[in-house]
Amino acid sequence: LTEQKAKLFRREYLDLHVHEQAQIFSDLDQTLRGRVYRYLSANEVGDMFDAIEEEPEDVVKYFKEMPVQYAAKVIDEMYTDNAVDILAYAQNKDLTHYLLALPEERSAEIRELLHYEDKTAGALMTTEYVDIFADQDISSAIQDIRAEAADAELIYYAYVVSDDNELIGVVTLRDLLTNPEETRITDIMTDSVISVPVDEDQAEVAQKVRDYNFVALPVIDYANKLVGIINVDDVIDVIDEENAGEYSGLAGVDTQETPENPLQASLKRLPWLIILLIMGMSTTTLIDHYEALISQASILAVFVSLITGTAGNAGTQSLAVAIRGLSNSEEDRRSGIKTILSELATGLFAGLVTGLAILLLVGIWKHNFILGFVIGISMATAITVATVAGSIIPLVMDKIGVDPAVASGPFISTLSDLTSVLIYFNIANQFLNFFLNT
Amino acid sequence: LTEQKAKLFRREYLDLHVHEQAQIFSDLDQTLRGRVYRYLSANEVGDMFDAIEEEPEDVVKYFKEMPVQYAAKVIDEMYTDNAVDILAYAQNKDLTHYLLALPEERSAEIRELLHYEDKTAGALMTTEYVDIFADQDISSAIQDIRAEAADAELIYYAYVVSDDNELIGVVTLRDLLTNPEETRITDIMTDSVISVPVDEDQAEVAQKVRDYNFVALPVIDYANKLVGIINVDDVIDVIDEENAGEYSGLAGVDTQETPENPLQASLKRLPWLIILLIMGMSTTTLIDHYEALISQASILAVFVSLITGTAGNAGTQSLAVAIRGLSNSEEDRRSGIKTILSELATGLFAGLVTGLAILLLVGIWKHNFILGFVIGISMATAITVATVAGSIIPLVMDKIGVDPAVASGPFISTLSDLTSVLIYFNIANQFLNFFLNT
Repeated sequence: LTEQKAKLFRREYLDLHVHEQAQIFSDLDQTLRGRVYRYLSANEVGDMFDAIEEEPEDVVKYFKEMPVQYAAKVIDEMYTDNAVDILAYAQNKDLTHYLLALPEERSAEIRELLHYEDKTAGALMTTEYVDIFADQDISSAIQDIRAEAADAELIYYAYVVSDDNELIGVVTLRDLLTNPEETRITDIMTDSVISVPVDEDQAEVAQKVRDYNFVALPVIDYANKLVGIINVDDVIDVIDEENAGEYSGLAGVDTQETPENPLQASLKRLPWLIILLIMGMSTTTLIDHYEALISQASILAVFVSLITGTAGNAGTQSLAVAIRGLSNSEEDRRSGIKTILSELATGLFAGLVTGLAILLLVGIWKHNFILGFVIGISMATAITVATVAGSIIPLVMDKIGVDPAVASGPFISTLSDLTSVLIYFNIANQFLNFFLNT
Repeated sequence: LTEQKAKLFRREYLDLHVHEQAQIFSDLDQTLRGRVYRYLSANEVGDMFDAIEEEPEDVVKYFKEMPVQYAAKVIDEMYTDNAVDILAYAQNKDLTHYLLALPEERSAEIRELLHYEDKTAGALMTTEYVDIFADQDISSAIQDIRAEAADAELIYYAYVVSDDNELIGVVTLRDLLTNPEETRITDIMTDSVISVPVDEDQAEVAQKVRDYNFVALPVIDYANKLVGIINVDDVIDVIDEENAGEYSGLAGVDTQETPENPLQASLKRLPWLIILLIMGMSTTTLIDHYEALISQASILAVFVSLITGTAGNAGTQSLAVAIRGLSNSEEDRRSGIKTILSELATGLFAGLVTGLAILLLVGIWKHNFILGFVIGISMATAITVATVAGSIIPLVMDKIGVDPAVASGPFISTLSDLTSVLIYFNIANQFLNFFLNT
């Protein structure tokens, strides 16, 4: 490409899988990209753009580099769902240019998909599906599929619709191939079609694909009309996204970070560090409140971090279980009250065992079982409180519509620090006479 | 079913999607399951067993309830990969019975799949694929696919093999339908087939399916011979499993827990709580070492948990980023040294900013900028160390072959507590004269 050998480049590049084409393209600079646009037709780069793995807001910049007509042709060539993801980031002026340059029908399709809310079935779906009618026979259905095959993103399922486009059944290519050619579709179609409404949350879509092991899922509007399909590869992206969200939340960091340089990486991590630092200051202020107590009985200070740390671990465990529980589909969930009561019992039991263990450890180590008792009872209480809080907080956040996964891990640790310190010093205060510095 | 109405049950049950059948079946008790086996033929329950979502070690118990011949028929009816997952948990004696009752060919297939190591391509794959030859024409290939369609798990790709079963190409059903019937396969097949070796790690398999958006991936042995295919639904299970592993590791708990009762839940969480408690004791012992210092300057004790907590958060952030990084495929990874240097710079910068913030906060709050300076410099150092440790530890664990995700979150917090305390009291010791209790 650098040597401007157009022919050789064309031969080698077009021989590659689109995924590899896309990887090479992503590594090019603007001059070289310009040559790609010159050497290859819009048709030829269209599939590559479907496979590109950069963020849509970055891909849209490539469109700006192309002549408008060329860009419109690339968009026309792409699958609608992918094109729409990218065009959502185009400037209004550019978007208008592209839409005007597109064939009327495509432009209408794209305009419609641009309306759907992010993270819903509508935003995930594509309109390139295969539909057939119930009164066709297999050979005519296969003719139809042949005709649509070049454009359709997936031809493994053919959706059966009524005259006004209502979804009434589905047949697989397997059904079509294993039955005699003259069979009518209505006789072989599955009429209880599993589908999702267009405004369904993407996490629920992913769960349905998991449950039913489908390769694609039809999307219907409020009137049961077929409006699109969601393919399994887009569902995998959703699963990755949802999982990364939960995982990032537990760590208080965006783990999707692509750290071009350490400065940017630290700028991404600092907001949470500082927020948690300020929240942590509340615990510090609380300990400060007990400074007089500590100066009289410095042994108490020795165990603060053990109690806060262990309670924090228990809280994180219960939080992680709760968040995974929330990601289950509605029907599989247990009721909120039941979850909390069960976590209370779990916390009590775990607290008692851990408390007893530390009572013995400290008692033997310091030859002071009263100190051991104070630490043990504080730890048992702190663990119970943290465990219950770890299950209540995500439930409440979910109820009020906040994503419970956001930085929930460090948040729960900080909160449990605060309650643990409060519990510990209050209990210790009752037994003060035993610890006074001598 | 409770009323023993066999006919009515058959009609209603067989009308359901297998996923729903499986959900109902999982809720039945042993008596009712016995009736299901009586009312339905092995053929009819086979598909349901493919869709069952319980753990394989639980499903194998159902086989024990059935007459051996019936169980063998169910196994015969299931997809080989699913059957093998379950049979891996059968007792040797039962396994022998089943294998003897199966047709010779099936029994050989299953025996072979049972050999592959867990979490490799071999363990994920199934042997029900469609293979054709390069010198066939499309119409004869479609005939072959028709013949195999009923048994094959997925007929969307037809894999082209040489006479000695070497994988030389692939065609999609789309290719077959959109080209003239007399076209020879060799003219339309893609000859650079993306495949995975049979001993490939399952995480790499998932990454390939993600990258190439395939619905299935062929599996080859060392001699490039086609031995099976992996379907996208099994890959989704792998993605869920890998993600759950990372997530559970960060929280130090098995988030897959299905807590029948709180006692069992707490028994699952206690091992990590106790291990971390004992590790935490090392920090406590270290603080105890400085008790004399604390009794002289109790203000120092006030800030211990703020410093350990913030450093712990920074360590967890860097850990989470590192573990996500490791889950990327080999080619996308940055080198170890580069990662560590970059994390060092990130940690230094984040530490400096956070340290400066706390210097000001403490300085103003306590009207003591020397105290602020000690806290600030301690925190900056502790954050830097925790950030670097958070990236080194998973790298080292990965190198020596330990899964870096196991309880890594609480582990790094505990470790960073220890180093933070050490750093803090050593620095404070240098400035002791300023803090002596008056």
